[in-house]
Amino acid sequence: MTSSDQNVLREDLPLPLCVLRAGALERNVARFQRYAESRGVLLSPHAKTAMSPALFGRQLAAGCWGLTFATCAQLQVARRHGVSRVFYANQLVGAAEIRYVCSELRRDPHFDFYCLVDSVPGVRLLAERVAAADPGRPVNVLVEGGLAGGRCGVRDVGTAVAVAEAVRAAAPHLALAGVEGFEGLARHQDSSRRESEVRDFLAFLVRIAETLDGRGLLQAGPVLLSAGGSAFYDMVIDQLTTARLSRPHQVLVRSGCYLTEDWGAYASLQDELQRRTGSAGPALEPALEVWAQVLSAPEPELVILSAGRRDFGQDAGNPVALTHVRRGTDQCRPLRDSGWQMTAVSDQHAHMTVPAGHGAEVGDLVALGPSHPCTTFDKWRVVHLVDDDYNIIETASTCF
Amino acid sequence: MTSSDQNVLREDLPLPLCVLRAGALERNVARFQRYAESRGVLLSPHAKTAMSPALFGRQLAAGCWGLTFATCAQLQVARRHGVSRVFYANQLVGAAEIRYVCSELRRDPHFDFYCLVDSVPGVRLLAERVAAADPGRPVNVLVEGGLAGGRCGVRDVGTAVAVAEAVRAAAPHLALAGVEGFEGLARHQDSSRRESEVRDFLAFLVRIAETLDGRGLLQAGPVLLSAGGSAFYDMVIDQLTTARLSRPHQVLVRSGCYLTEDWGAYASLQDELQRRTGSAGPALEPALEVWAQVLSAPEPELVILSAGRRDFGQDAGNPVALTHVRRGTDQCRPLRDSGWQMTAVSDQHAHMTVPAGHGAEVGDLVALGPSHPCTTFDKWRVVHLVDDDYNIIETASTCF
Repeated sequence: MTSSDQNVLREDLPLPLCVLRAGALERNVARFQRYAESRGVLLSPHAKTAMSPALFGRQLAAGCWGLTFATCAQLQVARRHGVSRVFYANQLVGAAEIRYVCSELRRDPHFDFYCLVDSVPGVRLLAERVAAADPGRPVNVLVEGGLAGGRCGVRDVGTAVAVAEAVRAAAPHLALAGVEGFEGLARHQDSSRRESEVRDFLAFLVRIAETLDGRGLLQAGPVLLSAGGSAFYDMVIDQLTTARLSRPHQVLVRSGCYLTEDWGAYASLQDELQRRTGSAGPALEPALEVWAQVLSAPEPELVILSAGRRDFGQDAGNPVALTHVRRGTDQCRPLRDSGWQMTAVSDQHAHMTVPAGHGAEVGDLVALGPSHPCTTFDKWRVVHLVDDDYNIIETASTCF
Repeated sequence: MTSSDQNVLREDLPLPLCVLRAGALERNVARFQRYAESRGVLLSPHAKTAMSPALFGRQLAAGCWGLTFATCAQLQVARRHGVSRVFYANQLVGAAEIRYVCSELRRDPHFDFYCLVDSVPGVRLLAERVAAADPGRPVNVLVEGGLAGGRCGVRDVGTAVAVAEAVRAAAPHLALAGVEGFEGLARHQDSSRRESEVRDFLAFLVRIAETLDGRGLLQAGPVLLSAGGSAFYDMVIDQLTTARLSRPHQVLVRSGCYLTEDWGAYASLQDELQRRTGSAGPALEPALEVWAQVLSAPEPELVILSAGRRDFGQDAGNPVALTHVRRGTDQCRPLRDSGWQMTAVSDQHAHMTVPAGHGAEVGDLVALGPSHPCTTFDKWRVVHLVDDDYNIIETASTCF
């Protein structure tokens, strides 16, 4: 949908609005793709971030290998929108989920699908359900390695071997395509300790891959080694490309948040990455904003905005105040260092503690910059792509 | 949509799922309506909780006065679904919002609409925009009283008078229909201090109403006094019905969460209410559950489920584990006192710390009980109404 006669600052649409700066978005898509290619790795962006077919299309057009998803509901959206190669970065367990995947594999010979396994009971359950659903070809699985205290994934090489042997025993229903992990769960507050935790974890994934390869447990054909959220993809590439396997392998990264970056957690992680790499990472720009309106200024140092926890994520911190626009004008006053702070949040309101003499009046507009794009996108059924003057140039649906 | 051949426990649908126990829901709707009627007050449920037209319909059929909403997007959903009386429990500020309200007032003579004002500049802006949009009749407004340090609303009676005078000066575009406040922002941790904060605030609202009445600032016709979230509606009714005005007035409560109750914050608040009233409140039952699947049990005391922060709210605490169902059976084992705890959450996963020997296996189902229904409903595009055996008897859309 194109609707070029609408402008955010002119209040052509009810607020709040979720806005994507189109220029930044397009540059991020191109730059991250180019970065992956220059490093010789495959990119399968985690498309759960925005769940927007219009954005899937941009990532695929830029040349990514496929798209990554985490749930069956997400996969169904992808398939309805013609996505043919899916990295399902999750265990595939449920009966209805497995029936769906198998029916798609049977229906469409071009559907290329990969999912994860991390336990012998999980492999047996998957194999039994795949056998019953009869997709006509094996389901590709990767052994997931996990961080201690983290999420899914085997915690030691011995279990990885047992899981891989269970996959071999489940032929022809399953085929072992590689090894996977998610390093983004590393939890140390201190960044250098976090980096060493990530490094150890990536070395563990390489050890699993080399062991399974040495035992002949990986299927014929190219092998995938995959990790890489949006925080440590440089380290993932550095380490996974060093695996010494007896057959060709490809490293696959799955960052999702690069699409829009953010104004909090991922901005900091990106700064750390640029520091770590001597600025060799892609130059990403924050593209996601939530625009709200001043509803009330009931106390000298309190301003209430018309967007709340149903409009932006808070799991990685509250959004920051970006911009103030006096009602009826298009003059954007930067708020980043002006002392505006979101100190409380209701379902539909943000409570901003502001300096006395803040200059905002009822009806003025304020842009907020969220931290962690995933949990802001999922609050919206449409996001508006805007040009630099906040003209709406495209309205993209999300399919959560 | 009726789909009676599907069952949650049988894994007929991909997980996770948002489930409403239909029996509990229907009883809550009837009991709360009966309670309001027995206390002689009007009920305008806050329908932002679920934003589901199928549930609007049940509340209206039970006899509620109207429905309450908080944003223009919500109001548009209500109007598309034929809701004719709306209490807009928010300041009405934006140009597009005001144009929309006025066009609906002009289009439909049966549309009965009330919104809030809390400042002289806000009244002037609203009046100017209403005048430009020409709805053909006044927009009804209530003066909002606010808690110090809270959200919108005047902080003293003098400002309330100034706002009401501005409304009178804005005739015939605006008409003053009453006084409103939201007591649910009272913040004291200690429940008895919180109750006294609520009591003081309600007395403040009564003082505003009596003052505006004494000065002849309220419009002719019945006057509305409104407060009442889901925590203190008993106190709201006790106190607002004591206002001594020169003309007939009605107390309007706006609870939303009574529809489904919850398993955390609102369950505790409801317990407090029953204690306070000697069990004279309506007997509400928790109706909302999120069903997920065991994806992995990677460590002896760690179980990973297939639902995360994109599937349930966390703003009032993580969900509790309710029920464990062994895959392939319909035997529900209660988990409330079994030591299962959600100790970490990812976008699409819950990390459950469990006792060793927890008895759960990959593929088993687990029901989660959220705290604060609003922020779980808004994660879903459909919710499934189930009977006591978890047969799906209706699938209701949400319109966030």
